[in-house]
Amino acid sequence: MLNFTFQNPTKIFFGKGSIENLKAVLSKDQKIMMVTGKGSIKKNGGYDQIVKALEGYDMIEFWGIEPNPRYEMCIKAVEKAKSEKVDFLLAAGGGSALDATKFIAAAMKWGSGDPWDILSKGAKIESAVPLGCVLTLPATGSEMNAGAVITRESTKEKFAFISEHIYPKFSILDPETTFTLPERQTINGIVDAYVHVLEQYITYNVNAPLQDRQAEAILMTLIEEGPKVKADPINYDARANIMWCAAQALNGTINCGVPQDWATHMIGHELTAFFGIDHAQSLAIVLPGLWQHQREQKKEKLVHYAHRVWGISDLSPEEMVDVAIRKTVTFFESIGIRTRLKDYGIKLSDCRAIVERIEKRGSKMGEHRSIGAREVGEILALCE
Amino acid sequence: MLNFTFQNPTKIFFGKGSIENLKAVLSKDQKIMMVTGKGSIKKNGGYDQIVKALEGYDMIEFWGIEPNPRYEMCIKAVEKAKSEKVDFLLAAGGGSALDATKFIAAAMKWGSGDPWDILSKGAKIESAVPLGCVLTLPATGSEMNAGAVITRESTKEKFAFISEHIYPKFSILDPETTFTLPERQTINGIVDAYVHVLEQYITYNVNAPLQDRQAEAILMTLIEEGPKVKADPINYDARANIMWCAAQALNGTINCGVPQDWATHMIGHELTAFFGIDHAQSLAIVLPGLWQHQREQKKEKLVHYAHRVWGISDLSPEEMVDVAIRKTVTFFESIGIRTRLKDYGIKLSDCRAIVERIEKRGSKMGEHRSIGAREVGEILALCE
Repeated sequence: MLNFTFQNPTKIFFGKGSIENLKAVLSKDQKIMMVTGKGSIKKNGGYDQIVKALEGYDMIEFWGIEPNPRYEMCIKAVEKAKSEKVDFLLAAGGGSALDATKFIAAAMKWGSGDPWDILSKGAKIESAVPLGCVLTLPATGSEMNAGAVITRESTKEKFAFISEHIYPKFSILDPETTFTLPERQTINGIVDAYVHVLEQYITYNVNAPLQDRQAEAILMTLIEEGPKVKADPINYDARANIMWCAAQALNGTINCGVPQDWATHMIGHELTAFFGIDHAQSLAIVLPGLWQHQREQKKEKLVHYAHRVWGISDLSPEEMVDVAIRKTVTFFESIGIRTRLKDYGIKLSDCRAIVERIEKRGSKMGEHRSIGAREVGEILALCE
Repeated sequence: MLNFTFQNPTKIFFGKGSIENLKAVLSKDQKIMMVTGKGSIKKNGGYDQIVKALEGYDMIEFWGIEPNPRYEMCIKAVEKAKSEKVDFLLAAGGGSALDATKFIAAAMKWGSGDPWDILSKGAKIESAVPLGCVLTLPATGSEMNAGAVITRESTKEKFAFISEHIYPKFSILDPETTFTLPERQTINGIVDAYVHVLEQYITYNVNAPLQDRQAEAILMTLIEEGPKVKADPINYDARANIMWCAAQALNGTINCGVPQDWATHMIGHELTAFFGIDHAQSLAIVLPGLWQHQREQKKEKLVHYAHRVWGISDLSPEEMVDVAIRKTVTFFESIGIRTRLKDYGIKLSDCRAIVERIEKRGSKMGEHRSIGAREVGEILALCE
């Protein structure tokens, strides 16, 4: 096992009716700004419950955060929050509303510099406005971590930033608010959480069997529960199990003391930024190609995954790797997400700009920092 | 899944050399009192590393905390810490040093009342002196939770208390400090962690498959790694894996949204208080008898455990329950802990005082609150 540091201060309220806990964690002395998307929280009951819980509180609302939240919209929110002297931000919605809120919280305290530096240059923030969350779409794990991903529309760039200052003070997870999710978002969420686990699990062996099993626990639960919510969107237990899986997939637990990859996410972010496909779709496209390309480097863990998660044994290591990739693709396709660039009308030739940009940045990705521009081109060719 | 609230603010530094992080988390403005046992930290290298890391800091030392830490010794420490105006407590050692430190931290702020009320009456504390920990014996999970267990020698009583105010601010876990543990303490630690998981896992099914698998992850890792440290006490990875298992076993994760038992612990505490046997020994004695007694109530989870953890299938439910109990007993005995009252020279007739005390208290234990004095007597008879 590698040395590590772990801390996760976010308080979780989980279960039906848990939005009423807002009263217990927010103060009437605070000026609150709710940050949300384009209306889903009015359909799923979240908005009504928030307003009811916070009756008598001083709260304003900021609507309009997009999927793959845009920097430009965040800056509008920062201006509004500053002019209204907001001192607590309440995200309501999915990972997009929450990631936007995290960036708004950081940018509000950024002083006179360009807040884009936080994203593009990884400039370190020293503080952030406190924030909390009512989550209505399980997927990103943002509800229980210190990261956020923001896209700049004007330059088609998508960057993540991480800071201990942007942990939600609390996150409220009521599975009932996910009953009305469009199927595509439900599926995207399952795939997103699944790939989060894989990024922290399919690397190389460092003798950390507990973390391996904790990762497998999430994967196997998603494999079981995913089809249940597809068949019955108001199956409370299945919704609850998926919601808790998504939070546990990226809350810092399964990556304690193990290497991490994240190349699928970094390449996927480029696909989303350039072609506007959903985040989860980008992951479902890139992952199989990346594994095919990195099959030697990842062989031991892919064999382990084929055995533990898919119950396969008695095959050669090469065959086990093939099965690992095939089973994963089949799982994604079976719950309704396509796994090829061409399924989304993207031609390989259109991806040249991605390779050029990575070349220019000089990025090296993956658990060995061995995936550069050339390798990204080769991986994308395998995703055609 | 049941509704739940979860928060765990403790910061973990894990790995070889991690004691030097004390410098990063403690301030020279603080008056620190180190609280420790009778000398093990001088043998395992912990003391030297602490003193080196905290050179130039204002630190006094309190030595002499016993295994199953005694209230009477804690009160001495409270007096010393108050008279020296200590404002940070640093536990160094195992769960005993840490539990004592947690109680000392609470009692220092308890005001004029009798601090025994915190334990005997569950009186709620409003604050505690901040504390941190250098852990050198993985077992209790106290390094990452808000609980502590203290024994009163004069009355032979052993009680737990829980408060968010006693979470360690940080815990430092260096597996190398466990290389020199006496075998008996290593084994006790494995059994203690194993039974912690079982108390949160072998109850009744509430459709929480992720939590079940997270529990099984710890159990299977302990089963694998336990014999490795017995065979080779300086196997770093095995020591590290056990140390992380013990922390994860009782940090609030696996009990999210599921029922909990703890009757084995409550009965075991009485055995320790009356007969002075080790905590883990008391658990290894009580658990099999309790499962035998509660086999109907726990059947579904015992069958599940026999299948998932021990790989047994194709038997009747009754046979699966028998296998679950037998396999658990065999595991305990195989790593070197005896599982019968008579193995420790305790006669069933000596246990009458335990039943009488529980009768007097009117305690009801277990996940259904259905185990009272009569049932405890029946369970102990099965442990003879």
